[in-house]
Parts: sequence; C-alpha cells; structure tokens
Amino acid sequence: MNESQKAPRGRSREATRAKLLGAAAEVFAEVGLGEASVERICERAGFTRGAFYSNFASKDEMFLELATVVARERVSAVRARIDELAIDCDVPDVTVIIRALDVVGDDRASTMLMNEISIHAMRDADFAAAYSAQIDEVTGEVVQLIDEITQSRGIRLRLSSVDAARIIMGVWGDISSRAAIAGLNAEAMAEQRTRELGQIVDLLLDR
Amino acid sequence: MNESQKAPRGRSREATRAKLLGAAAEVFAEVGLGEASVERICERAGFTRGAFYSNFASKDEMFLELATVVARERVSAVRARIDELAIDCDVPDVTVIIRALDVVGDDRASTMLMNEISIHAMRDADFAAAYSAQIDEVTGEVVQLIDEITQSRGIRLRLSSVDAARIIMGVWGDISSRAAIAGLNAEAMAEQRTRELGQIVDLLLDR
Repeated sequence: MNESQKAPRGRSREATRAKLLGAAAEVFAEVGLGEASVERICERAGFTRGAFYSNFASKDEMFLELATVVARERVSAVRARIDELAIDCDVPDVTVIIRALDVVGDDRASTMLMNEISIHAMRDADFAAAYSAQIDEVTGEVVQLIDEITQSRGIRLRLSSVDAARIIMGVWGDISSRAAIAGLNAEAMAEQRTRELGQIVDLLLDR
Repeated sequence: MNESQKAPRGRSREATRAKLLGAAAEVFAEVGLGEASVERICERAGFTRGAFYSNFASKDEMFLELATVVARERVSAVRARIDELAIDCDVPDVTVIIRALDVVGDDRASTMLMNEISIHAMRDADFAAAYSAQIDEVTGEVVQLIDEITQSRGIRLRLSSVDAARIIMGVWGDISSRAAIAGLNAEAMAEQRTRELGQIVDLLLDR
C-alpha cells in the first residue's frame, strides 16, 4: 500500500470514529450509559457492529474516549480564551481567569456523561484504572494552564497549582451537576458558574 | 383502637420501613440504582410488594428517603463531634472544624448512591424537584452548623455561611467520588479527606 492510498483510508477511519462518537453522545443523552448499547449506537451512526469493533475494543473504551474528547475540548477552549485575553494586561487577574473559565459552556448531556462515567468507574476496577489515567492527564493540562497564567501575570496562589487545579475542577463539576438538576437555562447556568467560580478563584489568589 | 395497641403498630411500621431501607441500600450497592427493582428489594427484606407500597409511594420516593437518611446521619455526626470538641477552646479553629468534618467516614456505597440519585435527578424533572428540596434542607442544616461554630468561637469567614456550606459540600462530594474511584481503603480515604478539607477550610477562614 502506498502513501496516496493510506491517507484517504486514515481520514475515512477518523470520520467513522467521529461519527460513532457523535452517535454515542446522542444515544447516551437520550437513554443513559446503561441503555446505550453498541447496537443502538451503530444503528444511529449507520454503521455495522463490525465497524464499531474495528474502531473500539469495547463500549467502555468508546465512552472513555468520548469523555476524553469532552475534557480536552474544555481545556482547549479555556486555553484559547486565555491567549486572547493575555493581550490585555489591564484587565484584573480574577476577571481574566473567570472569563477564561467561563468560555466553556457545560451542557446537560456532557455533565450527565461525566457523572455516569464516574459512577461506572466506581463499580469497575479495570475501567477505574483507565479513567483515573485520563483524569490525571486532563488534570496535568489544567495544572500547566494555571502555571502559565500565574507565571505570565505574576499571580501568586495560596495553594500549589496542583491543589488549585483539583479544587477548581471539583467545584466546576459540582456547579455543573447542580445546574443540570435545577434545569437552568444556558444564561442562568453561565451566571451561576461565573459567580461561584469567581468566589473560588478569589479564595485561591494570594494578595 | 387504644394507645397500647397503636404504639406497637407504629414501631412495627417503622421497623418495616427501616428494614426496607436497609435492604435497598444493600441491593443498590450490589447492582446499582437502575437494577435495584422493588421486587429485588422486597425479596432481600423478606417483605411483600404490598408491604413496600404501603410504606413508599414509589422506588424513587424510597431512594430519596435513603439519601435523606444518609445526609442527615452525616450532619448529625458532625454536629455531635463539634459539641464534643467545643469543650476544648485551646484547640485551633481549623483543627476543630476538620476533626469534626472528618468524623463522617464516607463509604463507597453511600457515595455511589448519592451520585446515582443525582444523575437520576438530571434525567427526571419530578424527581429533581423533590431531590432539590432535600438538598436545600440538608444545606440549611450545614449552614446552621457553620453559623453555630463561627459564632461560638468568634471565627470570621471570607464568604457567607451559605456560600461556605455549598463549597464544603461540593468539595466533599468530589473527594468522596475520587476516593471511591481510586478504590482507597478507609485509612487512605480519611487521610486524603483531612488534607483536602483542611485546605478548603483554611482558604475560607478570614484571619
């Protein structure tokens, strides 16, 4: 097989994975992790079970990848916003951080996904190991982001960036869960997140 | 019916409810909220479906009561420990608060229960309303406890007791979930909780 043959096949494979992940996210949002069978996901995506299993070893592996994609997108969005805001050094530090964190609009579906995956990890030790590794990776990215912001703006925190990352991620998860339960609309959800994340960032700053 | 007849019947009814709740907690821990059917719970408790439905309107109502019992026990345990520690005014404030919070050993089963109930509330608006009312009530008790501690010891917080309660409860939930996923033993779990809750209490104190 030469390169010109390989390239389209690689793209098509990626497209298949993306379609399966998209279908899984939809089916999951409708019926939950337990009821979201490989059959249902394949049916939604318009693929065979063969296509599924040539892309993912199991349903667990696929949902873990879906969670990773969601987490990565959040971190990237915050990073992009930080870069955008970094130009303006006159904006106070807390405001920059809050505005940056606030760019990620957590929706109900991804909040439910994250919560169900976390419960699944409590019940299944093998899955827990893979999930913990993913959490550690995302936490590492958040820590790096915090280090970049604090160093570039000369901000001092009252805790290490690792502890700060853990607290911000924990509070974030809690805010998202409560907002999803309260059935808040996007605007009310954003307002609540801004206020509560603002408090935590404010507590963390050493000044 | 005279009083002497009523009393035992009341006790027996309470005993039946308690047995059903205990059986539900066990079945839930084994198979999860979705699979924990009324049939399975009755079989475990040794009661008929009739006994179940004369005590609870639905499985949802029963799990909500189970969550309430767990939450109440936590608050009571913390309150009792506070009263015990209140005698010794030489112990520093943070230590008192942490020791008091730490008395509640969150186990995997109740952590999973709380998480599954929370997801169920995200999916079901009626249940969400009942669940939110329960959360508000427990939050109110935590706020009262915080007010009592801060007032009796002359402690000032950097946020209102309502905001502090929300943050402590959110961080607590996050710590418990991560500990359950990591499969930590009781000792390691307690050590992690002490450290992380200590950080949050320290951030919240105004001094």
